[in-house]
Amino acid sequence: MENYLSVPDSKLKEIHSYLINEYQKFKNMNLKLNMARGKPSPEQLNLSLEMMDVLNSSSDFNSRDNVDLRNYGICDGIPEMKEFISELSGIPSENFIIGGNSSLSMMFDTISYFMIKGAGGCSPWGSQEKVKFLCPSPGYDRHFAISEYFGMEMIVIPMTETGPDMDLVEKLVRDDEQIKGIWCVPKYSNPQGITYSDETVKRLANLKTAAKDFRIIWDNAYFIHDLSNDGDTLLNILDECKKAGTENLPIIFFSTSKITFPGAGVAFMACAGENLVALKKMYSIKTVGFDKLNQLRHLRFLKDKPTILNHMKKHRKILKPKFDLIIDILKREFLNNPIIKWKNPNGGYFISVETCSCCAKRVVELCKDAGVILTDAGATYPHKNDPNDSNIRLAPTYPDRNELKLAMELFCVCVKIAFIEKRINKN
Amino acid sequence: MENYLSVPDSKLKEIHSYLINEYQKFKNMNLKLNMARGKPSPEQLNLSLEMMDVLNSSSDFNSRDNVDLRNYGICDGIPEMKEFISELSGIPSENFIIGGNSSLSMMFDTISYFMIKGAGGCSPWGSQEKVKFLCPSPGYDRHFAISEYFGMEMIVIPMTETGPDMDLVEKLVRDDEQIKGIWCVPKYSNPQGITYSDETVKRLANLKTAAKDFRIIWDNAYFIHDLSNDGDTLLNILDECKKAGTENLPIIFFSTSKITFPGAGVAFMACAGENLVALKKMYSIKTVGFDKLNQLRHLRFLKDKPTILNHMKKHRKILKPKFDLIIDILKREFLNNPIIKWKNPNGGYFISVETCSCCAKRVVELCKDAGVILTDAGATYPHKNDPNDSNIRLAPTYPDRNELKLAMELFCVCVKIAFIEKRINKN
Repeated sequence: MENYLSVPDSKLKEIHSYLINEYQKFKNMNLKLNMARGKPSPEQLNLSLEMMDVLNSSSDFNSRDNVDLRNYGICDGIPEMKEFISELSGIPSENFIIGGNSSLSMMFDTISYFMIKGAGGCSPWGSQEKVKFLCPSPGYDRHFAISEYFGMEMIVIPMTETGPDMDLVEKLVRDDEQIKGIWCVPKYSNPQGITYSDETVKRLANLKTAAKDFRIIWDNAYFIHDLSNDGDTLLNILDECKKAGTENLPIIFFSTSKITFPGAGVAFMACAGENLVALKKMYSIKTVGFDKLNQLRHLRFLKDKPTILNHMKKHRKILKPKFDLIIDILKREFLNNPIIKWKNPNGGYFISVETCSCCAKRVVELCKDAGVILTDAGATYPHKNDPNDSNIRLAPTYPDRNELKLAMELFCVCVKIAFIEKRINKN
Repeated sequence: MENYLSVPDSKLKEIHSYLINEYQKFKNMNLKLNMARGKPSPEQLNLSLEMMDVLNSSSDFNSRDNVDLRNYGICDGIPEMKEFISELSGIPSENFIIGGNSSLSMMFDTISYFMIKGAGGCSPWGSQEKVKFLCPSPGYDRHFAISEYFGMEMIVIPMTETGPDMDLVEKLVRDDEQIKGIWCVPKYSNPQGITYSDETVKRLANLKTAAKDFRIIWDNAYFIHDLSNDGDTLLNILDECKKAGTENLPIIFFSTSKITFPGAGVAFMACAGENLVALKKMYSIKTVGFDKLNQLRHLRFLKDKPTILNHMKKHRKILKPKFDLIIDILKREFLNNPIIKWKNPNGGYFISVETCSCCAKRVVELCKDAGVILTDAGATYPHKNDPNDSNIRLAPTYPDRNELKLAMELFCVCVKIAFIEKRINKN
């Protein structure tokens, strides 16, 4: 494997011809593969098939407190489900609101609440001149879409190996009252798989913000989604905030979307102090209650901490070989030809690669033209605008191994073609 | 039965002593009954028990289009469910967004959308000086709570036998640009059970509003919830609006809460034109999709129009005797003693009574002190403020017949006591 960085242009042109030939072979295969979204595979969904049997017409539908869960009521979640999720997360059960099937929807509701009603005794975000939000990037496109929907100015915060660049975060929030919050995927971040270090969590919990209504949106989507036996550990931000006297800062979210079924899971949010009172009140006006039978179904299937952690091991057994396959191919193709960098995550749903500057869009386009859909280049940045046009998010979970191998081999060819095109056009 | 209106005070005082004695007997029974909310009874919930069997671990979870409904995707509802609800409602399937378990939540999302984004090319409601909403009253307390949450000024519109007082509605909206909408429960209105006449629906569809961003919130909660074989008929407002060129006016809501399970049903909304585009977009940002397995579960259980209408007959068989019981007791106690008026609805979940002026709170208080919870007096008006303090909403669906009989007998005693207290104190 030659290192393109030290190969003369004339030689690169030769290689390019060869690669185009290889690329054409892929095209002739009429591939139709998708590595765009973090979707569990059918095999993973089948791990929860038995959940479809735990409730049937002869089941007891009463809660422990003898409330018929088929009927109206219990707006913030059934108590035994709160205890289950409390044991699993280390967050006290009284801090939880249990929702429908979408934690994203609860994030949207939360931002919407602050837009309409405000926080920290300040006027509603929506009535202030401007609302800015910190967006650690690359990050989750759906977070940025919510900020965009609400008309926020998004400020890109570079990611480091230990989480968002906290020096920059601290500096910005100290001086700018218009900065009202930060989007965080603190464990196995989307897309890089970075877990925030203890120091990062502590610094977030101790943020000195000019805004009295600053909030941390803590989307802990991959909280038990490890790819190895000793997964990363993440400090409990609510604990850290309580110690720091900032319990009003964080609002925490997660769900069973990638534990049971993305289309029919249960979402959780947890917060404290004024947030908890306000958001419970909001939900009591918004709904008479979320789907409690689905909460019951999940509880009876997932049972307790050992059971759910064992269930996650089964996911890992399916996912780990797919991640390994990608990493192995990347190593084989690029270890001695460093025109691309990647991270090997301990968990989560993605592998993030950095192509050379101004190559990502071209790689995604080449793949698409050969029948492999990747996440849009740029999608991991606010307004879908990656300033370097270099980040690509690979989502290895949905395709089977054979498909994944093909898709990755095509991807590698496309990365090489894009690099050479770029180099040659530049010179 | 004496007519209190023509009995002298001295005699009323005697009757009062007798009634207090009767009331004490009820108190001694230590009743604990609840007629406050429109909750289906356990017997009604059991009508849908078999829905808990239609999906199990060996089910096919694919949609007709071969989409695995356990996974992410299909934000606005599965196509076959849209066709089912289209056949039932007469609204084209392409006008639907199918949601989670709560139509109230979708109304909240809709109002929230207009607050944040606006309608009809106007600036967002939230950025306008004032937003006023028309509130036909007595009406549904949770609608008024949403208006209150969003800081709207609520304007009481009296209800007539054919729906809201349309002369007043037309007059108000023609001149006042700040009036942005109206809450409607057009069939078997909560609490009076009034169905809007064809003329009322047509006049609503042809409203000339000063506001370009006026919207009709059409909560058709009781659309197939008849109490007799020939239920009321309601014009299809979307059809009428299309004829009138006002398809952007209505946003229609209903759900299966009182068809299957209130705690785990499916909610529907339907709209057209700019609303449909805007609200679909909003939901595509708010969520990756609602619970599609619960949509599938409902579809496979409720099947088609004949099946669901037959299912509603079973509800009717349980509900009709309860409504009859209440009406019979009211007739027996008050037909010749007209200190109270009531409506005998053809469907819905409530019986609305009008006590004499300034008696409702006292009646509810007396009942409560004897162990029977009624809907709070005033709850059927904006800000829980019934200007006459006369409307009481009776919810006969949840208690069994024996409980209902006891509760109603107590209620009648309390109505009489409150009337006499009021008369004697006034004179």
